[in-house]
Amino acid sequence: MEFAYIDWLRRQTPMNPRALVGPGDDAAVLDWPAPSSCLVTTDMLMDDVDFRLDEVGPHRVGRKAMAVNLSDIAAMAGRPVAAVVAVALPRTGNTSLAEELYRGMREMADAFDTPIVGGDTNGWNGPLVISATVLGEAVGRGPVLRRGAKPGDWLLVTGPLGGSIRGKHLDFTPRVREALRLHDLVELHAMIDISDGLAADVGHICAESGCGVVLRAEDIPLSNDSRDLEQALSDGEDFELAFAVSPADGQMLLNKQPVLGITLSAIGEFVADGIWLEQASERRPMQPKGWVHEL
Amino acid sequence: MEFAYIDWLRRQTPMNPRALVGPGDDAAVLDWPAPSSCLVTTDMLMDDVDFRLDEVGPHRVGRKAMAVNLSDIAAMAGRPVAAVVAVALPRTGNTSLAEELYRGMREMADAFDTPIVGGDTNGWNGPLVISATVLGEAVGRGPVLRRGAKPGDWLLVTGPLGGSIRGKHLDFTPRVREALRLHDLVELHAMIDISDGLAADVGHICAESGCGVVLRAEDIPLSNDSRDLEQALSDGEDFELAFAVSPADGQMLLNKQPVLGITLSAIGEFVADGIWLEQASERRPMQPKGWVHEL
Repeated sequence: MEFAYIDWLRRQTPMNPRALVGPGDDAAVLDWPAPSSCLVTTDMLMDDVDFRLDEVGPHRVGRKAMAVNLSDIAAMAGRPVAAVVAVALPRTGNTSLAEELYRGMREMADAFDTPIVGGDTNGWNGPLVISATVLGEAVGRGPVLRRGAKPGDWLLVTGPLGGSIRGKHLDFTPRVREALRLHDLVELHAMIDISDGLAADVGHICAESGCGVVLRAEDIPLSNDSRDLEQALSDGEDFELAFAVSPADGQMLLNKQPVLGITLSAIGEFVADGIWLEQASERRPMQPKGWVHEL
Repeated sequence: MEFAYIDWLRRQTPMNPRALVGPGDDAAVLDWPAPSSCLVTTDMLMDDVDFRLDEVGPHRVGRKAMAVNLSDIAAMAGRPVAAVVAVALPRTGNTSLAEELYRGMREMADAFDTPIVGGDTNGWNGPLVISATVLGEAVGRGPVLRRGAKPGDWLLVTGPLGGSIRGKHLDFTPRVREALRLHDLVELHAMIDISDGLAADVGHICAESGCGVVLRAEDIPLSNDSRDLEQALSDGEDFELAFAVSPADGQMLLNKQPVLGITLSAIGEFVADGIWLEQASERRPMQPKGWVHEL
């Protein structure tokens, strides 16, 4: 591991004291003060696949690279601890590409007190590739997994869905604080961040939990970017959280709306099996559409 | 985070029970049983920069991607705990590319009881990119950093140097066990894995420790792949360890050679300042050559 030029940038601003690392050490050293679960997630973004560098610029790319990983920590109701980042920078770029990329990452990481503690900076003749890994720690009742939803549980989401391609997929704020607040307030039975699309991701919860779900079309909050139910069901990269709670907790969350800045919506109920969409009192089986991971 | 196809492969073989993760969870959950330091390192390898896929094949690439990260954990005298891997697979490849890549990673990771607990699998029109992150834990006296060498300390290396381009850079075994054994036996003042080249990497120790070093040309063990002092000094990717110990510990290590399978060599001494090469009783200042990180 090395940080080369980006290491110089990193030293320009103070770091979280929890990360004890020399600028040139082979690995970052993080103080892990108490027995707890360590959460690890990694995501790679590539030019012309996850973004178009010439259209959106490196700052937003850096921001997104960090945000998608923070969103995965949020989905576990974890607290982010630190990040490392590996990049392949196109030689056709210049120093400002690396700088802006880093500033974007750093801005997002700083917003969640997550020091970037190391990385690997490379140049090549290919397009920009950026791969971030974020570590987190489990808090409170422990990490929230995808398995754990039970028939009868309510399904809630943290915000409106659909049309993220118009900009939200780059500029979203990961629901880290919201997840921690919810985790503190109620027992979250299962949770996921909506990256593949609502139907597909709720399908992931069902697959892991061994149950089914009924989504109520009229209750799904539609994004102003879309206002389209089909898109709300199938568009990826909304990065809102979908989670399962007991009906009593669900009702309490709806009534009190205790999470600052967002409106929680109850959009369905877990059942024994099947994935169903209920619309105008009619229930029909749904083929989860959305992002299908390649290969 | 997702593992898609590679996740299927992962489930074919049992995992280290320390990693508690559902196949589809958003982040891996690692049990961190006691307060200790968590080590994190990341390295990215790209086709035509770090290897030529058409010449070496995906198995060796996967192996190397894991090995370079394990070597960084070794350089801190840490014990590897888990790995995550993100890949960009060329669409021109086929399923066997992903499989062989994963088998190479897995073979190396298994050799060091390091479960691959998650990842991100992508397809694209670009060349193969693979980015691994390895977590480790500090043991015994804690992590060994680059700072900590003192004038008077001896400089030792774990094996012969030079000519790694003929194959060792792909097929080396990271010195994880050797580092743990040394850490157990003596107080390691500073350590590094030789990835940039002996002179450059010992220069890194000096820079971090605020001291200098004299390398004794006649004592540097030359690899059979090179037999050339200049190459031993400047070739990168030998992935042997270079470390600083007290003269008493250095003498003991040389006499007893207590690390199974390798021959330790004392090749120099740390001094107040300067980087020097001593040859035929003549001492001359050295310009560290070797791999210079780009950008």
